Amino acid sequence: MSKEKQFVKEITPQNEDFSRWYIDVIRKADLMDYAPVKGCIVFKPDGYELWELCQRELDARFKETGHRNAYFPLFIPESFFMKEKEHVEGFNPELPWVTEAGGEKLEERLAIRPTSETIIGHMYSKWIQSYRDLPLMINQWANVVRWEKRTLPFLRTSEFLWQEGHTAHETEDEARRETMQMLEIYRNFVEGFLAIPVIVGQKTPSEKFAGAVDTYSIEAMMKDGKAVQAGTSHYLGQNFAKAFDIKYLDRENQQQHVFTTSWGVSTRLIGAIIMVHGDDRGLALPPKVAPTQVIMIPIGPAKTRDQVVDRTYELQKQLKDAGIRVRVDDRPDQSPGWKFNEYEMRGIPIRLELGPRDLENGQTVLVARTGGEKRIVSQEKLVEEVGRMLDEIQQNMFIQAKAFMDSHFYSVDTLDEMKQRIQQERGFFLAGWCGSEACEHQVKEETGATSRNIPFEVKEHKTKCLVCEESAKHTVVFAKAY
Amino acid sequence: MSKEKQFVKEITPQNEDFSRWYIDVIRKADLMDYAPVKGCIVFKPDGYELWELCQRELDARFKETGHRNAYFPLFIPESFFMKEKEHVEGFNPELPWVTEAGGEKLEERLAIRPTSETIIGHMYSKWIQSYRDLPLMINQWANVVRWEKRTLPFLRTSEFLWQEGHTAHETEDEARRETMQMLEIYRNFVEGFLAIPVIVGQKTPSEKFAGAVDTYSIEAMMKDGKAVQAGTSHYLGQNFAKAFDIKYLDRENQQQHVFTTSWGVSTRLIGAIIMVHGDDRGLALPPKVAPTQVIMIPIGPAKTRDQVVDRTYELQKQLKDAGIRVRVDDRPDQSPGWKFNEYEMRGIPIRLELGPRDLENGQTVLVARTGGEKRIVSQEKLVEEVGRMLDEIQQNMFIQAKAFMDSHFYSVDTLDEMKQRIQQERGFFLAGWCGSEACEHQVKEETGATSRNIPFEVKEHKTKCLVCEESAKHTVVFAKAY
Repeated sequence: MSKEKQFVKEITPQNEDFSRWYIDVIRKADLMDYAPVKGCIVFKPDGYELWELCQRELDARFKETGHRNAYFPLFIPESFFMKEKEHVEGFNPELPWVTEAGGEKLEERLAIRPTSETIIGHMYSKWIQSYRDLPLMINQWANVVRWEKRTLPFLRTSEFLWQEGHTAHETEDEARRETMQMLEIYRNFVEGFLAIPVIVGQKTPSEKFAGAVDTYSIEAMMKDGKAVQAGTSHYLGQNFAKAFDIKYLDRENQQQHVFTTSWGVSTRLIGAIIMVHGDDRGLALPPKVAPTQVIMIPIGPAKTRDQVVDRTYELQKQLKDAGIRVRVDDRPDQSPGWKFNEYEMRGIPIRLELGPRDLENGQTVLVARTGGEKRIVSQEKLVEEVGRMLDEIQQNMFIQAKAFMDSHFYSVDTLDEMKQRIQQERGFFLAGWCGSEACEHQVKEETGATSRNIPFEVKEHKTKCLVCEESAKHTVVFAKAY
Repeated sequence: MSKEKQFVKEITPQNEDFSRWYIDVIRKADLMDYAPVKGCIVFKPDGYELWELCQRELDARFKETGHRNAYFPLFIPESFFMKEKEHVEGFNPELPWVTEAGGEKLEERLAIRPTSETIIGHMYSKWIQSYRDLPLMINQWANVVRWEKRTLPFLRTSEFLWQEGHTAHETEDEARRETMQMLEIYRNFVEGFLAIPVIVGQKTPSEKFAGAVDTYSIEAMMKDGKAVQAGTSHYLGQNFAKAFDIKYLDRENQQQHVFTTSWGVSTRLIGAIIMVHGDDRGLALPPKVAPTQVIMIPIGPAKTRDQVVDRTYELQKQLKDAGIRVRVDDRPDQSPGWKFNEYEMRGIPIRLELGPRDLENGQTVLVARTGGEKRIVSQEKLVEEVGRMLDEIQQNMFIQAKAFMDSHFYSVDTLDEMKQRIQQERGFFLAGWCGSEACEHQVKEETGATSRNIPFEVKEHKTKCLVCEESAKHTVVFAKAY
């Protein structure tokens, strides 16, 4: 680490300017850099590691539920997009086009994939002939591109990394169960692994995926009260099956169109982790997704240094053998105080200090990134205590984030009320909605908030539309969103 | 699996038509499909799984040696390619260009990356300021595109998957050591994990990477005698450092250009696994890279079926718990004979049969894909015996492939001799070479073989150039290549 890095300016406080805070944190914690291509970023090692841990965990969950990975081409012929009307309308404005290759102008333009329903639909129509080929359940880890006008590192970039699951089924019922299963896997992962509480629900028609029958989402609340759509699962019905002629011979020997689903999460999760858990001191990483869970810092004067450092490495080995991700920082040219600040800023869940007195007493000192008392722990029980503390931190981070979300969740009856409150309060707004696109649009125009989803569970069912005051068809969560 | 799959035509014998054999095998084993985009393929789950296992193993080895993963943009501005003269000449003919995006014509064309030296060079010039920032050792797992005229599934496709390592160092010496370290990691991985013996050596100047000072490769011999370049490691000197202005303040406070390396392996390894180990019955997978290492097939009449199947699953659990990748095929509608052929064709290393008599005797039958006697093994020692047998198969597959390579390795003195022999024999040809590009070119023109590399170890040092008969500067391996 170069000296220069120490002189990055201080982090802007969240309350002063949340956007600046965000950029300060991701730059100072070295998670990303801007790329020399519009709207693209470089995922630096400390940022990419967060994605690797998400990948590993999700991949295991997908495989447990019978999905297998495959890889489809980056390029999609223009004619493929034309086959599903809503799909082309939704994605066309965002596509980059390859028009020349290998020194020649192409006969047909190739889009860089923004998502792969079309090319996968084309392949599935070749692969599926009989009910015996179903269900077909494939996932892909890939880069996708959507040429965005306004970009924000991790949360909205022209190129991003994601996974996209694509499944085909015999019946609507089975496809709908798959859609819900994957939504639940996302909820469980985001809440349990990333410690981010979410609102689970269905998107309104105007916010659903281009080409889907129904789109479901999990929505998370950032510390500025804005929403991040953290994952989506789509029931596509027979829309893509009909557009791409994906048919199978059913058990009665009849040709039928399959029912398909698709579902995805992306590197925007990294942005959500930062904005949900970070504070004015920097990042705060939930232990399960923290690339380093424990940073060990040997301290004390030069004459006891070797002894302390040796013992630190012995203890590190014990922790490592127990599956804990642990690093030692024994650089002599940086002060302990500097290191404390540094690793706090980088969000490492536990700092372990070991000095000559600790050595004498057979103990170590543990400090949680999220605060609370220093804990003096016997070296003999270190592995057990660190494990317990990581679990506690993970749980507490979820509880804190949940408390934040709950206390920034408002119920409003009229658009006027919402307009007033949204000027004073950051958060989510629960309101009744008649179901008309016009009323939904008016909310957006007048408040800047969009409908996030129609939650499956609400504390309160609204009876009147906040705009037209007709009877409410749904109770909807509105919020400004990334 | 649909009935249709059973009626795929038989596999063409290797001796009849090796190319057709290859396509028959990868289609019948369901590893890939052709994509509706020129030169691109779909990696189907059974093919992709091979890559996932390669990735997992290599990723661990890269991390053990201090490398970290990151992700750089897919798009490279045209001006970046212009900065390194050899590089642009080498890659320009193969680039696809994005000229429009988001509904507008771009001011500067964007290439789809064929490799990332240029964009990574640009980023490194921002990240590296001082010797304290060195070495910088980053790897990227990514898709890359090279618009190929003649393509072959896995071995040469327009889009492929790979990893590319990019490192920057203070000194030439350190960069050269890194180049060699990665070459050795590749050799060890390809020989030890994929059971593919390789010739390790240096590329001749005309075959080196566009922009490198020195390129090193490992070259494997397919069963038709042709070579596959299975991995390359490049010492780039200061070429890219100068083109992209990657400078650091050294320990004497002087500005210096860094020394860089890059190294990569790709999904063409999948093609090599198939062509080195496959035979007329289909695939043969080395246990370490086999997604399924043991296929368990319960057999016998209906009345004992339940008992046999139950015991099969009990034994599967034991094997699984020991870390062995094992599947059961208990479908009642397929005969054991059909299953034996099917899994032989798919290259699964061990078939385990369990019938009612085996149940009585507390034994199972093990059959290796690579041949040899059936082994009757006590169920009590099953885990141990299967583990031992997998090790044996892995070793034997390497030994067999090595014996094949050694017996198809010819030493020639003159171009005439080589021309004659290459018409009769498939394999590699060791010959002396004066070092002139003209002689190298003549070999290619008259035999179709290219210089593969200058091996580090040879049994015999040639003294005269096979073409001009001047004194030989190097002893070179020539071969036809994929």
